[in-house]
Amino acid sequence: MTGLAPLPRGAAEVEGGVTAARGFLASGIAAGLKSEPGRPDLAVLLADRPAAWAATFTTNRMAAAPVLIGRELLAAGGRLQAVVVNSGNANAATGNDGLRRARRVQAAAARVLEMPPARVLVSSTGIIGRPLPDARIAAALPAAVAALSPAGGPSAAAAIMTTDTVPKTFALEARLGGGTVRVGGMTKGAGMIHPRMATMLAYLTTDARVARPVLRRVLREAVERSFNRISVDGDRSTNDTALVMAGGASGVAVPARGPVHERFAALVRAVCARLARMIVLDGEGLTKLVEVAVTGAASDAEALRAADAVANSPLVKTAWYGQDLNWGRMVAAAGYAGVRLDPARIAVSLNGLPVVRRGRGLEGEAFARAAAEMKRKELAFVLDLGVGKGSDRILTCDLTDTYVRINADYPT
Amino acid sequence: MTGLAPLPRGAAEVEGGVTAARGFLASGIAAGLKSEPGRPDLAVLLADRPAAWAATFTTNRMAAAPVLIGRELLAAGGRLQAVVVNSGNANAATGNDGLRRARRVQAAAARVLEMPPARVLVSSTGIIGRPLPDARIAAALPAAVAALSPAGGPSAAAAIMTTDTVPKTFALEARLGGGTVRVGGMTKGAGMIHPRMATMLAYLTTDARVARPVLRRVLREAVERSFNRISVDGDRSTNDTALVMAGGASGVAVPARGPVHERFAALVRAVCARLARMIVLDGEGLTKLVEVAVTGAASDAEALRAADAVANSPLVKTAWYGQDLNWGRMVAAAGYAGVRLDPARIAVSLNGLPVVRRGRGLEGEAFARAAAEMKRKELAFVLDLGVGKGSDRILTCDLTDTYVRINADYPT
Repeated sequence: MTGLAPLPRGAAEVEGGVTAARGFLASGIAAGLKSEPGRPDLAVLLADRPAAWAATFTTNRMAAAPVLIGRELLAAGGRLQAVVVNSGNANAATGNDGLRRARRVQAAAARVLEMPPARVLVSSTGIIGRPLPDARIAAALPAAVAALSPAGGPSAAAAIMTTDTVPKTFALEARLGGGTVRVGGMTKGAGMIHPRMATMLAYLTTDARVARPVLRRVLREAVERSFNRISVDGDRSTNDTALVMAGGASGVAVPARGPVHERFAALVRAVCARLARMIVLDGEGLTKLVEVAVTGAASDAEALRAADAVANSPLVKTAWYGQDLNWGRMVAAAGYAGVRLDPARIAVSLNGLPVVRRGRGLEGEAFARAAAEMKRKELAFVLDLGVGKGSDRILTCDLTDTYVRINADYPT
Repeated sequence: MTGLAPLPRGAAEVEGGVTAARGFLASGIAAGLKSEPGRPDLAVLLADRPAAWAATFTTNRMAAAPVLIGRELLAAGGRLQAVVVNSGNANAATGNDGLRRARRVQAAAARVLEMPPARVLVSSTGIIGRPLPDARIAAALPAAVAALSPAGGPSAAAAIMTTDTVPKTFALEARLGGGTVRVGGMTKGAGMIHPRMATMLAYLTTDARVARPVLRRVLREAVERSFNRISVDGDRSTNDTALVMAGGASGVAVPARGPVHERFAALVRAVCARLARMIVLDGEGLTKLVEVAVTGAASDAEALRAADAVANSPLVKTAWYGQDLNWGRMVAAAGYAGVRLDPARIAVSLNGLPVVRRGRGLEGEAFARAAAEMKRKELAFVLDLGVGKGSDRILTCDLTDTYVRINADYPT
């Protein structure tokens, strides 16, 4: 399937999301932050001991208050034991007042959980530019903590949703380093982003024991190949966060290199890749899941730039929606990406069938065969730029009138 | 009005488009290149003598065959006397065969017009990736040349249309340097680009006498402030061309600097600006004409980058369509543009009314007043990044479900 690599050797899917790994509790409850009463909107994730952790945050310069605090925590170098996530309000574009409110939530959670505030990370997702109702969150925290359970992963995943239509969890288990290691996660992001909603949050847990610098490297590489390789509409949110906590309850230690390290990294990559694919698949209005692979580029970086231009071109995305094998638009998008390419050697294929060879579009029967593939829900394009060995790929979707209506019709 | 500067002092609008300036003839006829029979699709523009000229071409690396030939002509440094433009076929992504066909059209026109091929520039716009019917064009050229007339500007403007709904011409006259100078032009570009259609072409003429290097500088500056500051869907075409010919019939010489130079440059800028605005206004599906001005940036280049991110964000553009004063999306788009900004000092206004001050959105009555402006057809946003004195602006439009349907429903 498009964008779906085989599971790492020896890995098996398990239930539970962020509580699949031993040593983690989670809960999700309704705190009254969303306009729809009774919808869960407050999640707590708790490790049974302070855990090594790593995180990547949005590069958006309008980073939200909880992201700023998260960066501080990360830089301070301590361990992490709890994550509190609210949906319904992003606490973004809220200035110093937003920072104060986020710190009040952090302090309230620390009191209820009886730990220093520096062990608690807060996250927010939802409407931008409105004051965070921190008192309401603080009032609901005792109930959220009381609800914590080793089976609470799915509840937490439901509570972090905004315009998502399904909760998104995935977890793997594998024999590793003489024990059994689990890596699980949850994410949210409706792909096609709702008005004033901030987008992508992902939380992973593992019961492996991993030193902080190793965990950081593993997470960065996994995020780079998964969440950083999906694109729905090219907009990057103010709140994007991906975080992993390593508790160590499995008793398995992951070294800085070698086979055990590689296998652990593969697990994390596989969980991230599956969660990232779930985000694209949940895009409102989506009718096509599309992988854009670029090969033959002058470098991997140029391949990514070309894939990005193709994946974010409204003309290309609407043609996919129209089931029109309009390779001219794709090639033109690569052309304005500012990367080296050879117009006389460019090649395009769809689901393994040739479409363009040596810069010329196929015609007749050959074109018709490839064009028929446009009716499928999953499209895998390969665009060869004909100049080198660089390659990269992006997982994306089409642009539909449903997307426009959803994003335009939001009542102010 | 949005994106509409006052005319230069002393300038008056005149009819005629590219034939407003004395010494130019033009025609537009139907050569059978478009699927709809009888629609004009071949234009010829002729100067009564070899003229100084300047041109800017697309930066797309998949530049079409006629663009490659145009660049050669320009580099050769000679004068230009005729321009032949066909619509219906872009002759893009057609390789060496496309080059041969474009040269055959150039040679055929040179024969009919009895001049060296190097005096003839060819342009194409229309479907990408299909062989140019050069024989059909060559066969129609005698009729197109026979139809040449000093009143032919509007006919030529009609013949270069693809998905445009109206022909686009504009011309100005002004007393200048002891005489009367005219600058006129025509353009095509439906703003929202049709499947396989290549986009923006603009041709200007003037009866001023201008040396080639001066003309080049004046055109570059004018294009930079007009055609390079409009954005409909962020896609840049394989065929974009802007060209100016200076015949000299007015007897007025434009020097390299000084007041006469400045006034001439202002005329060219004004004609380019009006033609560029016509392109955005003709965008299929457009319901809002929007100017995004960025001020307070660290540099003009950063201001442009931020304006570009805002103007091309699908989330921002759909919010405009929904008449939703969603400043959070605009600020978030500026945030991911990779430019310096101060979240605590950012400010936003719409049609002169404040929306965000010092990073905080206004509420209540003040917000309601600004939000009511969203019902207007023309929106002028100013986004102040709060860090410096850089500024720039882009003229753009909203993203509507009509755009998606038009670009998706094209039959293959």
